[in-house]
Amino acid sequence: MHTQILATEARPTPREFGVGARVTLAVMSSDYIEIILGALAETDATGLEIETDDVSTWIAGDEQRITEYLAELIAAASRGGEHVTASVLFSRGCPGEISCELPPGRTALVSEVPTVPPTGVTASAQWALYPLDNQGSPGREADHMRDIYEAIDRAKANGSYVRSDHYVTRLSGDVATILETVAGGWVLAGRTVAHVTTHVTLAVNSPSGVVR
Amino acid sequence: MHTQILATEARPTPREFGVGARVTLAVMSSDYIEIILGALAETDATGLEIETDDVSTWIAGDEQRITEYLAELIAAASRGGEHVTASVLFSRGCPGEISCELPPGRTALVSEVPTVPPTGVTASAQWALYPLDNQGSPGREADHMRDIYEAIDRAKANGSYVRSDHYVTRLSGDVATILETVAGGWVLAGRTVAHVTTHVTLAVNSPSGVVR
Repeated sequence: MHTQILATEARPTPREFGVGARVTLAVMSSDYIEIILGALAETDATGLEIETDDVSTWIAGDEQRITEYLAELIAAASRGGEHVTASVLFSRGCPGEISCELPPGRTALVSEVPTVPPTGVTASAQWALYPLDNQGSPGREADHMRDIYEAIDRAKANGSYVRSDHYVTRLSGDVATILETVAGGWVLAGRTVAHVTTHVTLAVNSPSGVVR
Repeated sequence: MHTQILATEARPTPREFGVGARVTLAVMSSDYIEIILGALAETDATGLEIETDDVSTWIAGDEQRITEYLAELIAAASRGGEHVTASVLFSRGCPGEISCELPPGRTALVSEVPTVPPTGVTASAQWALYPLDNQGSPGREADHMRDIYEAIDRAKANGSYVRSDHYVTRLSGDVATILETVAGGWVLAGRTVAHVTTHVTLAVNSPSGVVR
């Protein structure tokens, strides 16, 4: 019994660790209500806690399911051909929300990098990654610029990297590949830094075409 | 001459210091192109550098003008009564963009807190503030939670604070007051921390009404 408690303390669940996301999905069409509600209804929410308010939809669960869900949701809203933008925030390590108090000794949560099947929907995106504390973990000091460069190298390796721009990295490709890049950077930085957030804005079916 | 160079080094311009913003403006209407282009055309861009791409509009200049511009732009796009969302990123201290290299000794840029006249347009918003390094400045150590709590106290004082939520603080009120809160937190944290970003998503004319 005591052992079990210790094991739980050593590896909190994603929910206990504050793993989750928010997405603001915008559809540039007068039919936006049906398109957004339709996309929310048809996207598989197994294993997730989901709550929609007037600004965004909150999604909590493990990193793999959250990333799959977001890819499916954004693709579903875009398949009718309307111009769609999605602003996504992933967060980890802030279970007490704004107060951000982690139990002592819990400096980071090691998770698997999410992999998502292609959606067939292509987007342009602008991405920023924020490792927010400097605690580090045994054997590896936290270093936010190192984590960011590693995340960008992964984006170059999977082909989603386009270029750096003011305050963001520009990505393009399948919505799934873009979200793999973003969630992957977030999970990898989160292996040494407890509190990590990342923001990405995706644009699908832009009337100005894909800018590279 | 030598003195002049030193003075410049001690107080870089906002542009040299990487002060700027990005906004993704979404109008939930089939007339979105004219509404967005109309709002961009009618908003006074004096003193600003502005560039629109397929994902967002980039705005560089001083904090006061950037904040005024954003309030006017979002209000202009919303006055026809359509549902509008705006995802805004403010950034400072990263003039070399992703490489974030500040000249030695430039740990922070002290700027005035922006004030913006009311627009008459009301929004709900979700806000996050990210002071990104731990250098601090003489006499005051950087402490990202202290800066965040101070920013929230300001939001309570000006009436825009609603409550904390998962990963964000919920704000509501005139678009101008919301942006004053957000830009104010960003500028104040930026007095001791060189690299500070803040993200806010505003929703205007939401069909679900204002959720508090």
